[in-house]
Amino acid sequence: MKFKIEALDPKSKARAGEVTTDHGVIETPIFMPVGTMGTVKGVHQRELKEDINPDIILSNTYHLYLRPKTDVLEAAGGLHKFMNWDKPILTDSGGYQVYSLSGRRKIKEEGVKFKSHIDGSYHFFSPESVMEIQRKIGADIIMAFDECTPYPCDYNYAKRSMHMTHRWLNRCINHLEKTPEIYDYKQTFFPIVQGSTYTDLRKQSAEYIANAGAEGNAIGGLSVGEPAEEMYAMTDVVCSILPEDKPRYLMGVGTPINILENIALGVDMFDCVMPTRNARNGMLFTSEGHINIKNKKWEKDFSPVDPAGITWVDTEYSKAYLRHLFVSNEFLGKQIATIHNLGFYLWLVREARKHILAGDFREWKDRMVKQMDNRL
Amino acid sequence: MKFKIEALDPKSKARAGEVTTDHGVIETPIFMPVGTMGTVKGVHQRELKEDINPDIILSNTYHLYLRPKTDVLEAAGGLHKFMNWDKPILTDSGGYQVYSLSGRRKIKEEGVKFKSHIDGSYHFFSPESVMEIQRKIGADIIMAFDECTPYPCDYNYAKRSMHMTHRWLNRCINHLEKTPEIYDYKQTFFPIVQGSTYTDLRKQSAEYIANAGAEGNAIGGLSVGEPAEEMYAMTDVVCSILPEDKPRYLMGVGTPINILENIALGVDMFDCVMPTRNARNGMLFTSEGHINIKNKKWEKDFSPVDPAGITWVDTEYSKAYLRHLFVSNEFLGKQIATIHNLGFYLWLVREARKHILAGDFREWKDRMVKQMDNRL
Repeated sequence: MKFKIEALDPKSKARAGEVTTDHGVIETPIFMPVGTMGTVKGVHQRELKEDINPDIILSNTYHLYLRPKTDVLEAAGGLHKFMNWDKPILTDSGGYQVYSLSGRRKIKEEGVKFKSHIDGSYHFFSPESVMEIQRKIGADIIMAFDECTPYPCDYNYAKRSMHMTHRWLNRCINHLEKTPEIYDYKQTFFPIVQGSTYTDLRKQSAEYIANAGAEGNAIGGLSVGEPAEEMYAMTDVVCSILPEDKPRYLMGVGTPINILENIALGVDMFDCVMPTRNARNGMLFTSEGHINIKNKKWEKDFSPVDPAGITWVDTEYSKAYLRHLFVSNEFLGKQIATIHNLGFYLWLVREARKHILAGDFREWKDRMVKQMDNRL
Repeated sequence: MKFKIEALDPKSKARAGEVTTDHGVIETPIFMPVGTMGTVKGVHQRELKEDINPDIILSNTYHLYLRPKTDVLEAAGGLHKFMNWDKPILTDSGGYQVYSLSGRRKIKEEGVKFKSHIDGSYHFFSPESVMEIQRKIGADIIMAFDECTPYPCDYNYAKRSMHMTHRWLNRCINHLEKTPEIYDYKQTFFPIVQGSTYTDLRKQSAEYIANAGAEGNAIGGLSVGEPAEEMYAMTDVVCSILPEDKPRYLMGVGTPINILENIALGVDMFDCVMPTRNARNGMLFTSEGHINIKNKKWEKDFSPVDPAGITWVDTEYSKAYLRHLFVSNEFLGKQIATIHNLGFYLWLVREARKHILAGDFREWKDRMVKQMDNRL
């Protein structure tokens, strides 16, 4: 993997860059649509490629491990071939997923014992097993196994957990060295900064992670319920320590506004279920603000879904028709809203990139942040 | 509406024809995908037009009347504009739908009182109100309000019901004359033959319907549970009486084999929820037989969904991937299977048409009927 910075914004810490993987180039800042089960829910691969066109998507180790299971992915020749997606993929490590299974998992130094949400069967994830699973899934970027702490989190718990995440990182790195890639392309490993919302822990963790000398670095444990200002404060501290010449990935973030603010702090990569999950509930993001399409006010509004027309669905369908689909629980509604929202998120990061390259990102960002807060 | 017969099969009663409407030409035999709520479930209008490409689709008066409601469709300028579909549409009359609400509807000479399946509210459909609703929906072909009898059906009930359907037909025709079209294109009215599985009633009804002198005629009350042989016997009797120079529409039929056998008996138009509904349950129709894609046997079968490759989904995705989507209850699975099945049904009727034009329909049909009965 190579990373090249192309431009720095003069009035913020935003950067425009280019990550090169064996499956193609990722222009940053980038938003990665979430394809939990090897599918971006409701979106055909053709639409993803031709209409939404993200340079990279994300998939989840925990979910793929349970279904279709690792042996099926290995028999397919990896996730790219299995799902017919030939551009870059990133997999999370399952750390966040097992953390979400609270009450159904037990975290120990050795690893995490958890109960499958599907059939209640018991499984065990360790830094070592997760590296092996991610080799078999075969994503271009694979993540360290970490513990994601909740918010709020007791200082002592956060500190102990952070140290364990650091020890787990060493185990990941050691085991990865002994576990060769099984497909004919390179995989890049990203470690993860933890430390909850404590500045001293975040500093300590960022230094530890920076010292690991990985090709890219991630910030975890944010967007778990803390106020946005705390998130930005943590990102700011961490970005000031993580190496400038490596891409920075802020995991699980966030709203369009969160994304712009974090780009301004030096983040290059994002993922979040928000555009896809909210789409399925009838919430549309637009550059003018957000829309609850189920609202009665759209019943006879035959204007396009979004006059900005970022993706074809925006002008193919009217608000009234989309509302009808949601009110009738027709799944075409979810499909349309998902394409719309992902199209918007990708438009947003591409616009951000353009403005960084043009040198006027900060002004544009400040304007957008105000405008996107509206409810239409 | 114009109808032109282009070819007659020498060894069966199959015909190839062309129906011309203000929204375009329908080449027959044709299968009409069902878009109950103004959406073919899980299929974008773009995919319907570019990939499946039916000359006409069907929508349901009962459902559209309840949601989005007639006033919304009228404000939109009709269903074509509301759903953004500029090719022909046929609407059923709601007769079959209210019949399906057994226990929640009361049929009288005046019409049918029924309880909405959505909110339990009471509504009343009469031949007159249904004509007005269909004017407002604005389909190119609109259907008479009839009573669809169940199977099996007591002879006396079937006879009384048939006579009421005939009286309702007169009321439909009278009221339609007084209710002008409200959009800038013509609507064509089809009456419906009833008579359950009784040859004498079917003959009597077909004669009554033929005498109405409509531009096209429909056969209702079949595919409600009777053995295929009884269905074919009834179709045969009715087609021998209905005028040859008008299109014949067999409502709600059926399996690929049913369609081919009824084409051989002189039917021109079909609709059925089977390709779409079965798709959503993981059943795929192919020219070699049908597939239950949820079956364990496809778990590591990375061959294309259907090597015949009728629509792009057939070669874009593997059987193993499609199985994974179904097992994981991911709705992309339903989307893929729906496009596949509709693509197959449309391929089937287009092939039938080609073979009628080539004069070898009967031989081809006999071969296909054997082959499609397999379970793969």
